[in-house]
Amino acid sequence: MKEYVFRDPVHGNISVTDPTVFALIQSPEFQRLRRIRQLGTSFISYPGAEHTRFAHSLGVYHLMDRVLRHLTDRNIVQIDPEDCALACCAALLHDIGHGPFSHLFEKLTGQHHETWVERVIGSPETSIYQLLYSRNQHWPARITSIIAGTWDGPPFLKELISSQLDVDRMDYLLRDSRMCGVTYGQFDLDRLIQTITVHDGHVAMTDKGIHSAEEFLLARYFMYWNVYFHKATRAIETVLDKMLHRAVSLVRSGRRDEVGFLPPSMEPILAGRAMTLSEYLLLDETDVLYAIKRWTQAQDPILRDLSDRFINRRLFTGIRLDERLHRVLERQAEIIEAVKAAGFAEADYYYHIDKTSNLAYSYYVKPTEGGSPPIQVLVDWTKPPALREVTVMSDVLKSIATERVTRYVLFVPKEAADEVERILEN
Amino acid sequence: MKEYVFRDPVHGNISVTDPTVFALIQSPEFQRLRRIRQLGTSFISYPGAEHTRFAHSLGVYHLMDRVLRHLTDRNIVQIDPEDCALACCAALLHDIGHGPFSHLFEKLTGQHHETWVERVIGSPETSIYQLLYSRNQHWPARITSIIAGTWDGPPFLKELISSQLDVDRMDYLLRDSRMCGVTYGQFDLDRLIQTITVHDGHVAMTDKGIHSAEEFLLARYFMYWNVYFHKATRAIETVLDKMLHRAVSLVRSGRRDEVGFLPPSMEPILAGRAMTLSEYLLLDETDVLYAIKRWTQAQDPILRDLSDRFINRRLFTGIRLDERLHRVLERQAEIIEAVKAAGFAEADYYYHIDKTSNLAYSYYVKPTEGGSPPIQVLVDWTKPPALREVTVMSDVLKSIATERVTRYVLFVPKEAADEVERILEN
Amino acid sequence: MKEYVFRDPVHGNISVTDPTVFALIQSPEFQRLRRIRQLGTSFISYPGAEHTRFAHSLGVYHLMDRVLRHLTDRNIVQIDPEDCALACCAALLHDIGHGPFSHLFEKLTGQHHETWVERVIGSPETSIYQLLYSRNQHWPARITSIIAGTWDGPPFLKELISSQLDVDRMDYLLRDSRMCGVTYGQFDLDRLIQTITVHDGHVAMTDKGIHSAEEFLLARYFMYWNVYFHKATRAIETVLDKMLHRAVSLVRSGRRDEVGFLPPSMEPILAGRAMTLSEYLLLDETDVLYAIKRWTQAQDPILRDLSDRFINRRLFTGIRLDERLHRVLERQAEIIEAVKAAGFAEADYYYHIDKTSNLAYSYYVKPTEGGSPPIQVLVDWTKPPALREVTVMSDVLKSIATERVTRYVLFVPKEAADEVERILEN
Amino acid sequence: MKEYVFRDPVHGNISVTDPTVFALIQSPEFQRLRRIRQLGTSFISYPGAEHTRFAHSLGVYHLMDRVLRHLTDRNIVQIDPEDCALACCAALLHDIGHGPFSHLFEKLTGQHHETWVERVIGSPETSIYQLLYSRNQHWPARITSIIAGTWDGPPFLKELISSQLDVDRMDYLLRDSRMCGVTYGQFDLDRLIQTITVHDGHVAMTDKGIHSAEEFLLARYFMYWNVYFHKATRAIETVLDKMLHRAVSLVRSGRRDEVGFLPPSMEPILAGRAMTLSEYLLLDETDVLYAIKRWTQAQDPILRDLSDRFINRRLFTGIRLDERLHRVLERQAEIIEAVKAAGFAEADYYYHIDKTSNLAYSYYVKPTEGGSPPIQVLVDWTKPPALREVTVMSDVLKSIATERVTRYVLFVPKEAADEVERILEN
Repeated sequence: MKEYVFRDPVHGNISVTDPTVFALIQSPEFQRLRRIRQLGTSFISYPGAEHTRFAHSLGVYHLMDRVLRHLTDRNIVQIDPEDCALACCAALLHDIGHGPFSHLFEKLTGQHHETWVERVIGSPETSIYQLLYSRNQHWPARITSIIAGTWDGPPFLKELISSQLDVDRMDYLLRDSRMCGVTYGQFDLDRLIQTITVHDGHVAMTDKGIHSAEEFLLARYFMYWNVYFHKATRAIETVLDKMLHRAVSLVRSGRRDEVGFLPPSMEPILAGRAMTLSEYLLLDETDVLYAIKRWTQAQDPILRDLSDRFINRRLFTGIRLDERLHRVLERQAEIIEAVKAAGFAEADYYYHIDKTSNLAYSYYVKPTEGGSPPIQVLVDWTKPPALREVTVMSDVLKSIATERVTRYVLFVPKEAADEVERILEN
Repeated sequence: MKEYVFRDPVHGNISVTDPTVFALIQSPEFQRLRRIRQLGTSFISYPGAEHTRFAHSLGVYHLMDRVLRHLTDRNIVQIDPEDCALACCAALLHDIGHGPFSHLFEKLTGQHHETWVERVIGSPETSIYQLLYSRNQHWPARITSIIAGTWDGPPFLKELISSQLDVDRMDYLLRDSRMCGVTYGQFDLDRLIQTITVHDGHVAMTDKGIHSAEEFLLARYFMYWNVYFHKATRAIETVLDKMLHRAVSLVRSGRRDEVGFLPPSMEPILAGRAMTLSEYLLLDETDVLYAIKRWTQAQDPILRDLSDRFINRRLFTGIRLDERLHRVLERQAEIIEAVKAAGFAEADYYYHIDKTSNLAYSYYVKPTEGGSPPIQVLVDWTKPPALREVTVMSDVLKSIATERVTRYVLFVPKEAADEVERILEN
Repeated sequence: MKEYVFRDPVHGNISVTDPTVFALIQSPEFQRLRRIRQLGTSFISYPGAEHTRFAHSLGVYHLMDRVLRHLTDRNIVQIDPEDCALACCAALLHDIGHGPFSHLFEKLTGQHHETWVERVIGSPETSIYQLLYSRNQHWPARITSIIAGTWDGPPFLKELISSQLDVDRMDYLLRDSRMCGVTYGQFDLDRLIQTITVHDGHVAMTDKGIHSAEEFLLARYFMYWNVYFHKATRAIETVLDKMLHRAVSLVRSGRRDEVGFLPPSMEPILAGRAMTLSEYLLLDETDVLYAIKRWTQAQDPILRDLSDRFINRRLFTGIRLDERLHRVLERQAEIIEAVKAAGFAEADYYYHIDKTSNLAYSYYVKPTEGGSPPIQVLVDWTKPPALREVTVMSDVLKSIATERVTRYVLFVPKEAADEVERILEN
Repeated sequence: MKEYVFRDPVHGNISVTDPTVFALIQSPEFQRLRRIRQLGTSFISYPGAEHTRFAHSLGVYHLMDRVLRHLTDRNIVQIDPEDCALACCAALLHDIGHGPFSHLFEKLTGQHHETWVERVIGSPETSIYQLLYSRNQHWPARITSIIAGTWDGPPFLKELISSQLDVDRMDYLLRDSRMCGVTYGQFDLDRLIQTITVHDGHVAMTDKGIHSAEEFLLARYFMYWNVYFHKATRAIETVLDKMLHRAVSLVRSGRRDEVGFLPPSMEPILAGRAMTLSEYLLLDETDVLYAIKRWTQAQDPILRDLSDRFINRRLFTGIRLDERLHRVLERQAEIIEAVKAAGFAEADYYYHIDKTSNLAYSYYVKPTEGGSPPIQVLVDWTKPPALREVTVMSDVLKSIATERVTRYVLFVPKEAADEVERILEN
């Protein structure tokens, strides 16, 4: 048996012995994930946050392997070895549809990375499809169904890929916090895995695992507020968003020349054309960052300025709104005037209300409010044993899960910030 | 006093209170280091090795600050606060002249990054010059002299920047090993710092520090063989080197069209023109990686193939030579024929003997063999106390320092490897 | 300046440069803390929990030093160097009055360890008194007053010793969790210290510190339920408690012979005599553990059995009561009969309702409910800046702090457990 | 399958599923290891070094389980499940014969702890024997033979228990360094285990493991000089040794009264009687430490003084001899006079030459010099593959392994140290 070992700053050794898994890792579509950062623009706030979706995906694969081993070694559930292999591949490939700065581009194209997952795995032209198909002709469809949640095999396998207790979250909390140099995303992985069980085909935690669940969800909670919603990250994200909209606007209004250089891979997006799969697979952060570097010399002054802000870290200033949100809405005209007066005539590109809860991250959302499958605890002191949703059993979790906290921040150029603040206060 | 804190995966909190230091960090020239990886191509072997020279430079600054604090808090030596500030800035800026994939580009241009350090710090057009000059008109020259080793102030300050016991090495060992997910580059930083002393104006370790020195140098030794000279890294480096030479050759022989896309920032290098400072500062890894991505569709088949190898991780195969080096030299013609026969007509681009000891890294080189200032131990049981070079005092170190170990690896395409191996064996 | 460095598994290097501090550490009264475990009987649940009050006290000293350095380096508050030295000594000595298995012995003697602190520091016969007095005749009283909370100097110094944000809690959370091999007591010490400030002479956290406070208090919360109230620890503690009561009962009822060996240092306690200071200082865990070992061969069968249970880890069985508490009270006679029927005629020694909230630990108690000084956050967006109690500002903390959770566990011998469980269920 | 999990500061979770293993852990003979420190007197130098042989033994069991799982999961060698279980029990029990402060007591009694291992496992009166016998009547003898090295099953199993690459060393290096708060005993356990292989029935490392072996042995080297031979530890050990000899001398010369209190468990040793097994099992560090505490009030002034030195950490002063050893031997009479003149009439108890290489620890001894089985590397580039001893393949290891370094330190009371130093210098 040939074994490949990847060294990893989070998990130490990641061992791969299945030749299909190793071939998938070597495929161009997967190697491409090396060129997409896991945390997009967070490097602006945390200099260490340069880790990639490639490393994260290896980590997710590794954790799936560990969890399944835990379940089978302890005879908690019988799993068909074929299903184990499928689940491991699904874990490895769960992010294969991601592009650069995903949610910004998703907004521009209207296409979610989930759509692309299906296309990458399901299209005969990709290496990934070919590798999976040559293993078993049903694998491409099955793996897609696990990732998409439409899989009709044992449900715990898809829940381990995507639910509020999935191996994706486990890896990214540990990895993001380690790379950012913060401790509060760390949790006791060994203990968490040990308390995972399966009941009626669904993932659950044993009764002993309540404190583990608390620790895990609180880690999410801390990362959410401190890292994922860090003000500087939101500020640079806003700059990037405005810049892309500016480029789109120039291209679509026949002012393509004022953009200057444009990577061919970005053309379809800016022009509003649908991308082919092979176009999509050519696009990664290298292209976007290179374009931004070039745009620092664009003819259009707005595109030029926004690009320069991105490259040289001249962030927008963030003004916490929260209970002052209504004041912004009331006095919007006045604020926009202030932004213009500060020298930003096209104020739309220099004014943004950021609403955190719109984002991909959330620490725990109850299913009644649209969250993905919740964490269930297997209570075995009742007869018969039964599953209970975790927030029912923990006051701490109840307090962080019941309401969606939304934080509003107004971003404007530093030059306009004082005046805007004055308007809000009067 | 305003304090800025950077979170760092290696040192935890990095605190900056000097406003000049903070402004230097915010300068475009320094922000540019975010786009240059500390370990160049090592990410190919260690998926976590994505850390940048930006983070490393912050770490080196932080360690300089800690060491100077150690020396002053314990009254080991009196240091003028101005000199402390100068040394901290020098630490921060020691890598400011680095470009992308430094030694490859240095080979191409014939200009070392040290030259660029002087130009970045010493040219009135850069933000860095302006910030330093506005603090004190002599600072640009003084900081350059500390980094260049020509400083005529207390010598220990320049030795802390560049010697075999400098804060640069301390940071990169810890950082590289952490990011690569290996333990053997770790050493006891607290203890090492605690044993640093100054004698007659020179850096030394106290008598108690011999085991610390051993641990530190052995960490280098292990990183050297396991990380810095990892075969896959050397293989991809060879691919990159050959690719750049191919592009140069095409451009300089009037076949520019066959290259296709070329970032303006790379033009001077490929064309063999001297770069201006502002051209140099525009060039970072983004440009090179973007170019390589585009070259995967170049008209020239060699450039296209080498670029595709780089992007999709189709490495050359490495054949350990060592005592077989002479056989390669004897049978070079035969080997080159084998490479050609495998389909690589222009065999020069598909055949390379890699000699490790040529590289920038070495774990410890005695000054008599051209190493930078060695590690001195202050022996205080003699009268008067005296400095002794560390390998005199440690058998372990003697064994790793006396001889320059050179490892030879022959790189050829996988398709030719078996035949080449056969030739070597007969 | 002579520096002594202690290596510590939690803090790395602990440096001591003040000669008084070093002499205090070397004093017999402080060395005695080496023979008292920080977590008393927890080693029974966590094999690593063998760490001593000696190591903990060094850690508390070290943290006080760090916090004061933080406050002065950043000019947050001016502190008289004399007060700094006093506070560091107070930190070092805050546990000097502890005896073995403190709260068990406190229950037996009716004297709290706080009383003993005063006597150890304030009695001219101790080395500690003499060392402090020779430094400054007022030091013994001043240090006692800082520890006792009666100090009339800047209040933040005594709050750093004893409040809900004190250096004692910081050290023991980190140390206990590290030694127990659990992660959930870890928190980001660097960040916590960085957010400590002083307002109107009182300790507070800056606005940025709310998440730090959450993390810190949640660490307490997790340690509380998982470590401090671990069922096996409570079980062995119950055995120890019953055993000591048995020995007391035998001695005080004239059956001294049936006890057998009795360390002279334990005589006063068992006999109900007040201990002199020098008697108290002779008593540590060595004596108690040695006595228990000898009692495994006592003439009295109950003392013998309980001692053997302790030494050979034959724990009582714990039955979670909680909402079933009233049933125990209703059916107490029946339960006691069951215990007797299982062969434990003197059922008082084999029957105990353990009430967790009675214990020394609590994760956070609001001052209105008798907690020590609460954690205050300095809100600087109001005019003027003002302190707000931390649970007002955090939903998570509100949920863990508002109510005192009490957990009731009934301990009986294993031999009786099934029958008792049956009685409770019917 | 019932699973018991022990939390451990070194390995995290230690899982036990074999009921025999769990029962062995609960046996009185194994629980006794809780009362014997792994590092004896090292706590005097490293306040954290309070960890016990109980925790270490659990760790060794855990590592054996991991290594065997590694070997079987990768099909490196087929192992009979019965042999796996035997090897795990042997790992758990390898230190079961240890008493308090082992090598001091071994010197006094002339009986090695290895002898006691056999008696504890092989005597029908112990719980351990009964548990093993009830599993399989041949187990007591088989497990003893694995530990003793006389086992005639696959040799790699006994080599994993006792050789220069055994699980015992792996655990104690990691554990001792963690608890002492030093980093240099840490090595990359994952990588080390991954390179373990079996060749011709013997343990070996794969070719890739040379740097792992280097790292592992250098960890031993650093721990040896920094921790195991720490001068303060050697000093307190000398005090303890002299104290026990004094007690022996008093008892055997009819001056028993001057000793005062004597734990019955220590009587046979002091009197020179052979101990029965049950006497031996009653003796642990509690008894010895309690005796020392009582002896601080012994009638005999020497016993009293030495005991007080131990309890209150008044160490002997160590004078490094090395090349000055011969001078001590030449001027021994003069030195002894100086010790007497300083007030220590019975100078034999206050004068000791400590020779480090006599001790149990050594970082690596070649078999030609009497070391236990050496580390073999499986070289697979030769035909056929063959084992080579590791120092042949590594210059670094050659340098630390070739010669037995001996360090001589002369210990005398502080009061005599200056004068002795003067004698040595003249």
